[in-house]
Amino acid sequence: MTVDPIPHQDPVLDALADTSARAGLPDLAQRLTELAALLQSDLAGVETALTALGDSADDVATRAAQHLLARPGKRIRATAVLLAARLGKGPGPGDRELTRDLAVAAELVHAATLLHDDVIDLGDERRGAPAARIVYGNTASILGGDHLLVEALRRVRPPLLDEILGVIGEMIRAEALQLVRRADLGRVTAESPAQRSEAYLTVARGKTAALFRFCLRAGATVAGLSRPEIDALGRFGEALGLAFQLVDDVLDLEGDPVVTGKSVHSDLREGKLTWPVLIALERDPKLAELLKAEDVALDAIADRVKRTEAAAATRETAAIWVEQAMADLFQAPPSPARRAFEVLAREGLSRKR
Amino acid sequence: MTVDPIPHQDPVLDALADTSARAGLPDLAQRLTELAALLQSDLAGVETALTALGDSADDVATRAAQHLLARPGKRIRATAVLLAARLGKGPGPGDRELTRDLAVAAELVHAATLLHDDVIDLGDERRGAPAARIVYGNTASILGGDHLLVEALRRVRPPLLDEILGVIGEMIRAEALQLVRRADLGRVTAESPAQRSEAYLTVARGKTAALFRFCLRAGATVAGLSRPEIDALGRFGEALGLAFQLVDDVLDLEGDPVVTGKSVHSDLREGKLTWPVLIALERDPKLAELLKAEDVALDAIADRVKRTEAAAATRETAAIWVEQAMADLFQAPPSPARRAFEVLAREGLSRKR
Repeated sequence: MTVDPIPHQDPVLDALADTSARAGLPDLAQRLTELAALLQSDLAGVETALTALGDSADDVATRAAQHLLARPGKRIRATAVLLAARLGKGPGPGDRELTRDLAVAAELVHAATLLHDDVIDLGDERRGAPAARIVYGNTASILGGDHLLVEALRRVRPPLLDEILGVIGEMIRAEALQLVRRADLGRVTAESPAQRSEAYLTVARGKTAALFRFCLRAGATVAGLSRPEIDALGRFGEALGLAFQLVDDVLDLEGDPVVTGKSVHSDLREGKLTWPVLIALERDPKLAELLKAEDVALDAIADRVKRTEAAAATRETAAIWVEQAMADLFQAPPSPARRAFEVLAREGLSRKR
Repeated sequence: MTVDPIPHQDPVLDALADTSARAGLPDLAQRLTELAALLQSDLAGVETALTALGDSADDVATRAAQHLLARPGKRIRATAVLLAARLGKGPGPGDRELTRDLAVAAELVHAATLLHDDVIDLGDERRGAPAARIVYGNTASILGGDHLLVEALRRVRPPLLDEILGVIGEMIRAEALQLVRRADLGRVTAESPAQRSEAYLTVARGKTAALFRFCLRAGATVAGLSRPEIDALGRFGEALGLAFQLVDDVLDLEGDPVVTGKSVHSDLREGKLTWPVLIALERDPKLAELLKAEDVALDAIADRVKRTEAAAATRETAAIWVEQAMADLFQAPPSPARRAFEVLAREGLSRKR
């Protein structure tokens, strides 16, 4: 089959060296540049593996899956695995293949959920292109997701296999919870702010943070870190994932669709109460009526949310969570990779896509 | 949550003892009755495990899954695993749990594909009740299928885990192939009979026979059989699965919906060319026009297919495949379980549901 792989760009890795150079740390900048070069080579391997999945694609499920994989994602989950694998003595030649498989698996699980989510949410656009379900149909998108899930699991060995199965289970339950809440906005808007935040965190932990937790734990396991270190890095991954979700929420509100590759306000359209909306509901309780109404323009709701400055508050919360998570990151021994995570976590707060 | 588990009936096991008694083999009948009692206890364990899956169901994905699992299926896949596990020296106390997990996993994979298939085929009824997607929605049915897939995989250890992942991959590709062919009846009806049969077999092997192959191989592995014996039993399982599919096709044509629990002619409605339809197309080539037309009543097509006596021919083919497969079954050492498979394979040809 013919695919058009778009060259992989990596703003995160570029930022790594830039930031250290700007911080007047030329030595660190040098070491991070070396690390970035290594990671770049690892990521190229991931990219090759992801593209190879569609090489013999003669069925519509694989083609639907390949349609998504061939678009350039941020590959943030793969990066997290690859970087975490360098938190110890660094992966040996054999471990490098193992690490790449884990990085590929993390991206595949993520892609599988996107294929299913697009059907569930009736999403039209993904990564700057029509969603697979638009090109190949809902059914192909469901089967394509199933296919990628199987391909992901084939790349993971025990004991990490049990962990990733547990994570996929969490992702499904979180999606189901979100589904129920979206269908019942009347009840949800009547809840207390604390109840709403709790439900939000349950969904975000399952949908986003659990896989980040896995990425960190998987990498740290390959790196040969101790059990307490792996646990701490798992917690760091979870916090990173939650912060990542908050920034995603902000981008849905005020991101540039050309840069994000997603249509703007799609969470709002789908009745998902993002973190900025939760904050706006606290600051402007009458917003609840607008959210429940059926004939209000999305832009009007978005404007009203923006007026509460909920986006800035959300970014602040994400920044606080990232800083709190540093204590867990620092359970790992000092290394360029650890420093890279520090930079990555903080730089991620101001990402535009 | 409250479920209404309908008491499990087992026509297959009852038939086992009946048939041997009728065949004037009281000794064998006695041994098969003992075997049936053991299997009955194993199957009760499977049933308990399947029901327990929904015990803490507070999400819509699990509820959708439980809706399907609580209905009494034939549990033919679980039976195949349990019986195959007794083809050797019989499972020890520890192996019994392992065997049950494998039997449960096989039923869960099957149930997962039913939940996804109902969404893909827009099926309304399943196991004599409204399909999960009707009760809980398409989305819950997709997520419920994902959930059961994860639960299945958690129960399987290497090296069988690789096998079941491969089987799930085959099932997905077969479903995708069927999907493409259903969407293009014009091209399909223009194919030669040989081409159509080949495509049918590819789909049936993937959708049905691959999982039966796994059931036999998994059980035979637990039973401690040799590699060539396991391979032979896998081939027997595949033949059993193909014959099973042919009988299913016949039931779609002339089964009693009250007994099958499925609406009649649903394959025809969904544009699936079943084996009887392929035979009818050979015997009555003008049927192709009717199949492609949009405004012809299903009953009219079904009547025309029936007039070619395609159902009887299909049952004959299934019987031939079963008899041919006996050579593979007989690679296993003689045992009551082997005799039970013989009876089961032949009795299965005349099943009504």
